Amino acid sequence: MKILIVGASGTLGRAVQQALSHHQILTAGRNSGDLRVDITDSASVRSMFEQAGRLDAIVSATGSLHFGPLLETTAANFRIGLEDKLLGQIDLALTGQHYLNDGGSITLTSGIVSQQPIRHGSNATAVNRALEGFAAAAALELTRGQRINVVSPNVLQESWEGYAPTSPASKRCPPPAPPWPMCAAWKASPTARR
Amino acid sequence: MKILIVGASGTLGRAVQQALSHHQILTAGRNSGDLRVDITDSASVRSMFEQAGRLDAIVSATGSLHFGPLLETTAANFRIGLEDKLLGQIDLALTGQHYLNDGGSITLTSGIVSQQPIRHGSNATAVNRALEGFAAAAALELTRGQRINVVSPNVLQESWEGYAPTSPASKRCPPPAPPWPMCAAWKASPTARR
Repeated sequence: MKILIVGASGTLGRAVQQALSHHQILTAGRNSGDLRVDITDSASVRSMFEQAGRLDAIVSATGSLHFGPLLETTAANFRIGLEDKLLGQIDLALTGQHYLNDGGSITLTSGIVSQQPIRHGSNATAVNRALEGFAAAAALELTRGQRINVVSPNVLQESWEGYAPTSPASKRCPPPAPPWPMCAAWKASPTARR
Repeated sequence: MKILIVGASGTLGRAVQQALSHHQILTAGRNSGDLRVDITDSASVRSMFEQAGRLDAIVSATGSLHFGPLLETTAANFRIGLEDKLLGQIDLALTGQHYLNDGGSITLTSGIVSQQPIRHGSNATAVNRALEGFAAAAALELTRGQRINVVSPNVLQESWEGYAPTSPASKRCPPPAPPWPMCAAWKASPTARR
């Protein structure tokens, strides 16, 4: 299969690339990869697909969000996630469907805060739920046997340290072992509860 | 209670206004009401709240979406719902929290396609799920006993005719009687199934 991985150089993208290494892989990213793309720019997305040609699968493991206290969040802050992780990935599906072979597959990435909201994460929960909703609705309409799915990863082991500052309790909470259930201490932390 | 209703002149807004008529009501809308507001413009939202003063409750019954075939949908189409029904309502909450009295309430509006996707409705499902996700996350952080909820109405009896063109089956399907379960014929229609 010929598979395009967008966000291939990220923590998740590298793992996806490794898992799919027995296929013909095309990598794409903002600053690296076989193809360069800014997913917030429709012209850039279209240009990437034009260069990629026909595909059997599109995997997106990319997208920025805003994290911050609700009291300080503005519409401009909130737009970060809407334009990048949400509309950026949706545009990969909307534009990508036209470059996807019969029976081809689109896989987008949401995240655990979709179902497990955390403090400072309202943008992330909104964006991730929207992605899951988009896929559920888009699946009703995709043509030629095309499929769409959203993968919602837990906190990645590799990203654990980066999230520590948002949770005082995470200092007492080691990176979880696979299959990576949400750490109980994290869930019970002052940042996850009201 | 002093209650601000945004989108007060719409089908839903009029019903909300009637139901809350024993309170002190301030109405707001794009083209009518005590206050005028463009919810896609943060400056306009802030100006409305400045004019409204302290509030006990904020009710939003407003927001535009894009409906159309997935095959023809572009990022620009999709942005309609993201900027209007989604970010517009979220900005009412983000900005409104600062004008809301202790224990005050914010109520946003999503819709049935959040949980019951229909063809041509990917924008609506994404936006409505995002609103529900935003509220779930924001509820963790609201201060001073403030509350946030999302109401997800079914197809409104008054709006039934307007939706008919999207479903051939709706011609055989009378407006549902309260409590308005999704009409079985609608759910089983070619537009709701793949």
